[in-house]
Amino acid sequence: MKVRLLITGGTIDKVYNQSNGELEFDKTHFPEMVKRSRVEVDLTLEEIMLLDSLDMVDKERDFIVDSCRSCEEDFILITHGTDTMCDTARLIGESDIDKTIVLFGAMVPYAVSNSDALFNFGCALGSLQLLESGVYVAMNGRVLPWDDVEKNRALGVFQYIES
Amino acid sequence: MKVRLLITGGTIDKVYNQSNGELEFDKTHFPEMVKRSRVEVDLTLEEIMLLDSLDMVDKERDFIVDSCRSCEEDFILITHGTDTMCDTARLIGESDIDKTIVLFGAMVPYAVSNSDALFNFGCALGSLQLLESGVYVAMNGRVLPWDDVEKNRALGVFQYIES
Amino acid sequence: MKVRLLITGGTIDKVYNQSNGELEFDKTHFPEMVKRSRVEVDLTLEEIMLLDSLDMVDKERDFIVDSCRSCEEDFILITHGTDTMCDTARLIGESDIDKTIVLFGAMVPYAVSNSDALFNFGCALGSLQLLESGVYVAMNGRVLPWDDVEKNRALGVFQYIES
Amino acid sequence: MKVRLLITGGTIDKVYNQSNGELEFDKTHFPEMVKRSRVEVDLTLEEIMLLDSLDMVDKERDFIVDSCRSCEEDFILITHGTDTMCDTARLIGESDIDKTIVLFGAMVPYAVSNSDALFNFGCALGSLQLLESGVYVAMNGRVLPWDDVEKNRALGVFQYIES
Repeated sequence: MKVRLLITGGTIDKVYNQSNGELEFDKTHFPEMVKRSRVEVDLTLEEIMLLDSLDMVDKERDFIVDSCRSCEEDFILITHGTDTMCDTARLIGESDIDKTIVLFGAMVPYAVSNSDALFNFGCALGSLQLLESGVYVAMNGRVLPWDDVEKNRALGVFQYIES
Repeated sequence: MKVRLLITGGTIDKVYNQSNGELEFDKTHFPEMVKRSRVEVDLTLEEIMLLDSLDMVDKERDFIVDSCRSCEEDFILITHGTDTMCDTARLIGESDIDKTIVLFGAMVPYAVSNSDALFNFGCALGSLQLLESGVYVAMNGRVLPWDDVEKNRALGVFQYIES
Repeated sequence: MKVRLLITGGTIDKVYNQSNGELEFDKTHFPEMVKRSRVEVDLTLEEIMLLDSLDMVDKERDFIVDSCRSCEEDFILITHGTDTMCDTARLIGESDIDKTIVLFGAMVPYAVSNSDALFNFGCALGSLQLLESGVYVAMNGRVLPWDDVEKNRALGVFQYIES
Repeated sequence: MKVRLLITGGTIDKVYNQSNGELEFDKTHFPEMVKRSRVEVDLTLEEIMLLDSLDMVDKERDFIVDSCRSCEEDFILITHGTDTMCDTARLIGESDIDKTIVLFGAMVPYAVSNSDALFNFGCALGSLQLLESGVYVAMNGRVLPWDDVEKNRALGVFQYIES
């Protein structure tokens, strides 16, 4: 099984910029995270953008969809900011791509203490290999389908859509 | 879905004892790890022992099997030292328990830098919820069945049994 | 020797707020840092404010000066944001308080990976006990007097004033 | 002021060996620690050995004394295991070397969570630059002279010799 990891940015990859005191993007942590996790899955990393998901516009979401469609792998992980992860999941889900695609991110950057990044990465990669084709969000230890997932901003957790 | 996490010790839970300079057990890190990972799964932690898996004897393995059988949950995670994880997986696998059971651990303690503990926990929990009943080992980002998994000591990775 | 540690905030004590993705103040890390450092000095912690030093105004600086003067200890550490640390040092230095006072902070928050917080704390506390009365800034492994220290923003280091 | 940092090993530099589960030496962390601490002092690192201080014999202690005497710097830091740090300090102290020499180490390895390594390094480097010539131990936030320091094994702290 070959897996493609599409990196788009989000909280998970932010780092502290000591010049201005802001959390920003420098470079992705995934090569380090993959090594640390001793991953033996055939995994190809591809950084397609490094964006805060609040700054993502249609063009970029379309590019993510295209990247899912055009890559050779049938199993795809996507890192994504949590704020609009469900929007991107929906767009991919409505695109009728016959692959298994799991989005994930983190509530706290990998480079900040007490981060959930490594856990979410593990959960996403473990699930990906067992799921039917479709689009999913893996956060909080759960795997939720693209058409029934929302971020509860008050609680900071991903959940089934409350009707 | 209710999940039971049976804690048995292993490298993942070792801590540094500054009195003697050894890595030993003090108390499990899982309450902290669960919180940090923002787990929303219905997860019950149970520490049944804190042992180096090289020190485990038959009586203790039997107790793990009994704990799997007697707990009310149908989905069970087991933390375990890596050295004899496959032995315990085999014993449970041959016990005909009709539940989904995933063993995991870490090559580097959670309390030591560059640990794979959180990744493996995520991978195990994510997989557990998607697997058919059976016994599995989740390490290195892969989920391997109890009757086809071995630890390659030279490489420090879990793999399918080489024939 | 009794030491007072006056906590005023600054980068050193910022934490990640997962609700808004900003680095903000929650509570000081110094009780944890002192314990971790196994400090045997008679040290009293006092949090007098938790401010970004760019947000500090005259009233607050005056309060810091008053706190230095009024506390019973003759040896005082002050945590401070780096942006205006030298301004506050100057104000205290010009106040003719006959005590030994060392200001320090961090370029990277204690809660962010690769932080200099613990090193700077050690450097400040070690120096404090050996210095003549006066006001100093301890950063980058050096101890510089209040009337000859500036922050070089381009390099992100504290240095003697370039003439 | 030029400072020489003589690296001899000790707990501070131990790392986890995932092959055998032991804490051992691989390579020193000081280049990383110096960078992280943003040290602006003129500091030359020299690794002269990587030993558990319980394994140090006379020949090695003599080599440390010789290294102190022969290096060009008048200000010397020495990393050292805590168990026999006071013995080595005494040997150097009795050697009549007219330099300022500060020994330090850590109770918990730099690579293990909750380590005091960075704090002790800061304390040692800050103190070194302010001390008269002589031999000192910097641990627990205090600087103690070679002829009046002992490790209290029960408490795990360095203290003045109890008479």
